[in-house]
Amino acid sequence: MSQYVIIGVMGAGEGASSSDVEAAFAIGGLIAKEGWVLLSGGRNVGIMDAASRGAKAAGGLTIGILPGDDRCALSAAVDIPILTGMGNARNVINSRSSEVVIACGSGGLGTISEIALAFKAQRPVILLNPDEDARALFEKMGGGLVFVAGDPAKAIEIAKRLLARRAPSGG
Amino acid sequence: MSQYVIIGVMGAGEGASSSDVEAAFAIGGLIAKEGWVLLSGGRNVGIMDAASRGAKAAGGLTIGILPGDDRCALSAAVDIPILTGMGNARNVINSRSSEVVIACGSGGLGTISEIALAFKAQRPVILLNPDEDARALFEKMGGGLVFVAGDPAKAIEIAKRLLARRAPSGG
Amino acid sequence: MSQYVIIGVMGAGEGASSSDVEAAFAIGGLIAKEGWVLLSGGRNVGIMDAASRGAKAAGGLTIGILPGDDRCALSAAVDIPILTGMGNARNVINSRSSEVVIACGSGGLGTISEIALAFKAQRPVILLNPDEDARALFEKMGGGLVFVAGDPAKAIEIAKRLLARRAPSGG
Amino acid sequence: MSQYVIIGVMGAGEGASSSDVEAAFAIGGLIAKEGWVLLSGGRNVGIMDAASRGAKAAGGLTIGILPGDDRCALSAAVDIPILTGMGNARNVINSRSSEVVIACGSGGLGTISEIALAFKAQRPVILLNPDEDARALFEKMGGGLVFVAGDPAKAIEIAKRLLARRAPSGG
Repeated sequence: MSQYVIIGVMGAGEGASSSDVEAAFAIGGLIAKEGWVLLSGGRNVGIMDAASRGAKAAGGLTIGILPGDDRCALSAAVDIPILTGMGNARNVINSRSSEVVIACGSGGLGTISEIALAFKAQRPVILLNPDEDARALFEKMGGGLVFVAGDPAKAIEIAKRLLARRAPSGG
Repeated sequence: MSQYVIIGVMGAGEGASSSDVEAAFAIGGLIAKEGWVLLSGGRNVGIMDAASRGAKAAGGLTIGILPGDDRCALSAAVDIPILTGMGNARNVINSRSSEVVIACGSGGLGTISEIALAFKAQRPVILLNPDEDARALFEKMGGGLVFVAGDPAKAIEIAKRLLARRAPSGG
Repeated sequence: MSQYVIIGVMGAGEGASSSDVEAAFAIGGLIAKEGWVLLSGGRNVGIMDAASRGAKAAGGLTIGILPGDDRCALSAAVDIPILTGMGNARNVINSRSSEVVIACGSGGLGTISEIALAFKAQRPVILLNPDEDARALFEKMGGGLVFVAGDPAKAIEIAKRLLARRAPSGG
Repeated sequence: MSQYVIIGVMGAGEGASSSDVEAAFAIGGLIAKEGWVLLSGGRNVGIMDAASRGAKAAGGLTIGILPGDDRCALSAAVDIPILTGMGNARNVINSRSSEVVIACGSGGLGTISEIALAFKAQRPVILLNPDEDARALFEKMGGGLVFVAGDPAKAIEIAKRLLARRAPSGG
């Protein structure tokens, strides 16, 4: 079994608020400090870039699952770029490959799709400062897989609890 | 230019209510009567099956974009099965290939992802009897691309209006 | 069960020889005359365009599975464009969705991938005027799924024989 | 820019010869010793498993791009499993995400598709002990991107040369 724990951080690329970007940077750092691998959408904007930078600043390992087929829009803080060339079809890979997904901030349309696809793949999602309508929708639809956190430390605490619950044979 | 108009009908596979299934059957029939091609997720359950059956009953042409790699779960009312073998990554194909998307009923998680991905691809979505939280979320996020209809006839009327607005060179 | 038979025609986009393009046009016409649906990669170049034009000239129905996410490079002879936005990952859809694949001419790299993926999906492939090295490779690797034809009429004759062999419940 | 170098090793899953499996193990070890990251198809069979085991035995980092949507068939030597759930459509991700592809042994149909897709993505491919027909085909079609090696050390030497040629801004 793989001994690496992969945590996905999703959120808006364009149009993320500065407080969401700050939270994503903090989340990335906390993920790295736990020894977990950060997985994101890999582009050089918004939540994915901030989380990757946070993880790198704390010495972590970062994976980026990119929509494009080259490194043009790649975050400089991604260690391992996976070039899918599949546009938003890669969103399903992001959700499925993460043992826990942290959705950071009010999100964009891509994030909404990733949260829905994470639940379809039976992955737990921690909503950090979500949009209220998204929260209402996903609390109704996500079954026991929805968690809400008010700050990065709380999100990490929930993630640790969720990982501890896993069967010993992993994901 | 292609002279076929492709209209996507999305909605819950499992767990669709009987009134949503009836509405999907009606929508499929109305799409066929307009001479449009019906595109759906292609499986033999829920909204996609009902819409395909409605379209076939009215003499229409039906396309199914299947998640699986064989015809096991194929709706008998799909004329042209496209076997993606890509699971929910095919949702992005459904949304993008439809000139207008009609989301029928309160939907499931897959439908939520398809609506979000449709907006990302700049496709208009008509919500027919949506869940209230989904409606609130998408009215906020979908820009000018969200429309709400109370019955199948109204949905078709909106679709006609949207298609008329297109540039003469098509989608 | 669907009563439509879907036949895929694959071949070089750029750089197809004029004799291969002529053969593809003829193949498209013969497919339409059999009442089969033509599936291709959908772009406005090479074998896929010629086969689609041939099928339309004979009154057939044409499906195009496009790599891109818009209609920019769409063949004018494609009735139903499926916009995958997935680049060459759509090659697997082309092969899998075809009950029989006809690879027209010496092919390009994309065609090589589609032939290999067709065999993986247990689809028979008819090589029409293949490159000799490709023929040698695929005759060795394709098991009982490889057929070679010297002209379009012969390819259609083989396709008919293959379709007749199918179980009555279809693909 | 990412400072990690990603080298893909491709080859048969089922039916790999024992000498090809040994070569893959050796290649994995040499990749790790160079400090490169090994990318493979991630399953617990054949060339991908052997290369991953070789890399882990030498202290390297291993990525597996899996066709499935769970960890059932995951190689125990893969550190970071990317669960695509896309079947062979993931082959395009394998080729594109690798800066250099090493195709180990006579390969299977999946490998043939990956080599062809690598050339389409402008990635160099080193054929290590290839099938003679595959070699003939790809030497003709791969332009300046085809290299042939007789043993693992030679393959690594070619890979180093190819990486040195890259522009300083990377892939």
